[in-house]
Amino acid sequence: MRKVFGNGLLLGSRCLKRRRHRNLSPGADITVKGVLFKILANLNKDDPRSLIPLGHGDPSHFPCFRTTPHADDAVIQSIKSAKFNCYCPTISLPIARRAAAAYLSRDLPYQLNPTDVYLTLGCAQAIEVCLAALARPGANVLLPRPGFPSYEARCAFEGIEARHFDLLPDQNWQVDLHAVEALADENTVAMVIINPGNPCGNVFTYQHLQKVAETANQLGILVISDEVYGHLAFGDNPFVPMGVFGSIVPVLTLGSISKRWIVPGWRLGWLAVNDTNGILKQTGVTDSIEGYLNVICGPPTFMQGALPDILEKTSDVFFSRIVNVLKEDAEICYEKSKEISCIFCPHKPEGSMFVMVKLDTSKLDDIDDDMDFSLKLAKEESVITLPGMAVGMKNWLRITFAIDPPLLKEGLERIKAFTERHAKKQ
Amino acid sequence: MRKVFGNGLLLGSRCLKRRRHRNLSPGADITVKGVLFKILANLNKDDPRSLIPLGHGDPSHFPCFRTTPHADDAVIQSIKSAKFNCYCPTISLPIARRAAAAYLSRDLPYQLNPTDVYLTLGCAQAIEVCLAALARPGANVLLPRPGFPSYEARCAFEGIEARHFDLLPDQNWQVDLHAVEALADENTVAMVIINPGNPCGNVFTYQHLQKVAETANQLGILVISDEVYGHLAFGDNPFVPMGVFGSIVPVLTLGSISKRWIVPGWRLGWLAVNDTNGILKQTGVTDSIEGYLNVICGPPTFMQGALPDILEKTSDVFFSRIVNVLKEDAEICYEKSKEISCIFCPHKPEGSMFVMVKLDTSKLDDIDDDMDFSLKLAKEESVITLPGMAVGMKNWLRITFAIDPPLLKEGLERIKAFTERHAKKQ
Repeated sequence: MRKVFGNGLLLGSRCLKRRRHRNLSPGADITVKGVLFKILANLNKDDPRSLIPLGHGDPSHFPCFRTTPHADDAVIQSIKSAKFNCYCPTISLPIARRAAAAYLSRDLPYQLNPTDVYLTLGCAQAIEVCLAALARPGANVLLPRPGFPSYEARCAFEGIEARHFDLLPDQNWQVDLHAVEALADENTVAMVIINPGNPCGNVFTYQHLQKVAETANQLGILVISDEVYGHLAFGDNPFVPMGVFGSIVPVLTLGSISKRWIVPGWRLGWLAVNDTNGILKQTGVTDSIEGYLNVICGPPTFMQGALPDILEKTSDVFFSRIVNVLKEDAEICYEKSKEISCIFCPHKPEGSMFVMVKLDTSKLDDIDDDMDFSLKLAKEESVITLPGMAVGMKNWLRITFAIDPPLLKEGLERIKAFTERHAKKQ
Repeated sequence: MRKVFGNGLLLGSRCLKRRRHRNLSPGADITVKGVLFKILANLNKDDPRSLIPLGHGDPSHFPCFRTTPHADDAVIQSIKSAKFNCYCPTISLPIARRAAAAYLSRDLPYQLNPTDVYLTLGCAQAIEVCLAALARPGANVLLPRPGFPSYEARCAFEGIEARHFDLLPDQNWQVDLHAVEALADENTVAMVIINPGNPCGNVFTYQHLQKVAETANQLGILVISDEVYGHLAFGDNPFVPMGVFGSIVPVLTLGSISKRWIVPGWRLGWLAVNDTNGILKQTGVTDSIEGYLNVICGPPTFMQGALPDILEKTSDVFFSRIVNVLKEDAEICYEKSKEISCIFCPHKPEGSMFVMVKLDTSKLDDIDDDMDFSLKLAKEESVITLPGMAVGMKNWLRITFAIDPPLLKEGLERIKAFTERHAKKQ
């Protein structure tokens, strides 16, 4: 009996692998979590010093990044009310859509309609939904390099070809719009921007976003604007939502409370249709979004029930406190990185929780590349960094500065000690 | 500019529709929600009487089905602890896996390992995960008729062929095992059972489940056992989890707290691998499950953090209270249905929240079929029922009895009045 069984299932398993490989474009099997997992596995367990996590954007464990009691209370009251134990409509709870539309409209020159917003299980599911809704045979989407590898993974899953345009380090990580024009063809359905930037820590200017909108309009493609780090801006450029240009080009705005409220584990995000000309409705894209939402599960009903209070009751004092810690962190990161000779930071981070720094391995004795750097750094100094290859840029590093500032200082000191120890002898 | 745009996106939209249609097998575009939506739209808004919802299994609004304060407290404490605001591993939080494994092992002749259990966003996501993990070109899965249409929809989505075996109304809705044997071929990967039964309200005996296991073993296929109504049994047959037979055949057990705790909107479920011989590990099925979990989003971290307390602290008094209300409801439903001449209930429900009754339209004057019956009943009596076509059986009705008992009585009275009014003149 076992034999019959084994054969049947083995067949299934082999075919599964074939299915997966068929869908994979280069890089589509890389995940930030997967790379960090490898690096964490290389830690020296006998190091008595504490681990310094500069690898991923989740500062929720640090007391200085504790979420606001208003958010906790909103969820607690939602549970206590017993009004949201029930199933939820697939296209989200009306009061949550209304609240999110009002929240997003604060920064727009027009009012979003509640029916323009769908609640999702964090921004990750918003990425899934919009790519699934745009998928069709032969379609391609233009993605930023460096970027966030979930886009590549979901494109592969949907059979969408991913094409990459560069972000330009010497132009404050602006989009290379000439590359966008050169890459697009009649099968291009969308381009993606991430603002404030992951992994670059940049914030696009109003003028640059307007150029992005005009370029996309000319190419006849829509813009997917990932604003999961929305409002986490602390440099010269204020955060401008791409939806501001929703009259020039249809924009699908992705966001969540994960980052601004420092609760990534709460999994509450949204997908907003910024499209004052109604083009996405006319062309069936909103129908596709709603059709896909019909076959997946959204966020728990009581979390949607809590959203109005989370969005309306959180005080500016909380937001300022978080942004000020990030600003202090960014300053520390930029200044300290100048002391490390094999690392070059092209631009002081002014948003999000990350910075990209270029690694000059020619100045190091026994470090092959960014992955080797991160692996050895973890082993010798108990500091976790993300090799740039994970976000599309080999021999760069993504450093997450969103941690407790004294710990960040110590982490950068350890990186400095590590690079000095491995410096090429002159 | 608009013209270029419209054309590009229209192309995308048309291709999307093609993609969808290609995947659809008959019935795969039917959802319980979709059918109920049509029926709700037919309500007469001028009817001053209250709506009686016998259509879907969500009694969370009724005070007699209020969840236990222990569950509320578990979530509230999890939020207050601030320990679970962080991202979660894709294969779930270890303490949640441990708690779910211990909970499920109470009813098994062996102990599940925490690594045998994955937390999912309700049982719906557990269905999604296991079908995605089993998908391969040409694969087919055997589904019960009547059944739960999410299986058909997810099979269509994954390109899996759905084949149907009957549940036998005159044998207490047991599986037609001869049909299972006749349907299976070398491309069959699994069969699905739902126990306690949705939509039939039956509970399989130990002996019948053992026969299911032996049949599946002989066919070399695994069993997907949907136990989302687990422990909601109130007749002669006690609830026996299919995992009891995990040494005869590998079983993927799907469950959630949605039904037993009456919190479907909390979206907390699981997928457990009951496979004492480790066949699913050897054949790569568990790898496929973990691979798929890596590209989707699971339940919020704090919900997983709350699970141990929910599972361990809920008292038997609460469970008994819920089961007793359901038992009273089932009794009312069965006895009242005998008074309605065009309806025949082949078996008194002894589990879950539903019963299937056969509709004899030949006794009715102006009712074409089950859909017509449900539509007119909604309009004339403000009572919602689910036509059997939505669950694979035309000219039957699925009645949800899980509501406040006095309201259930009134609903059945209204159905009686409706059928008498529409009775064929002798």
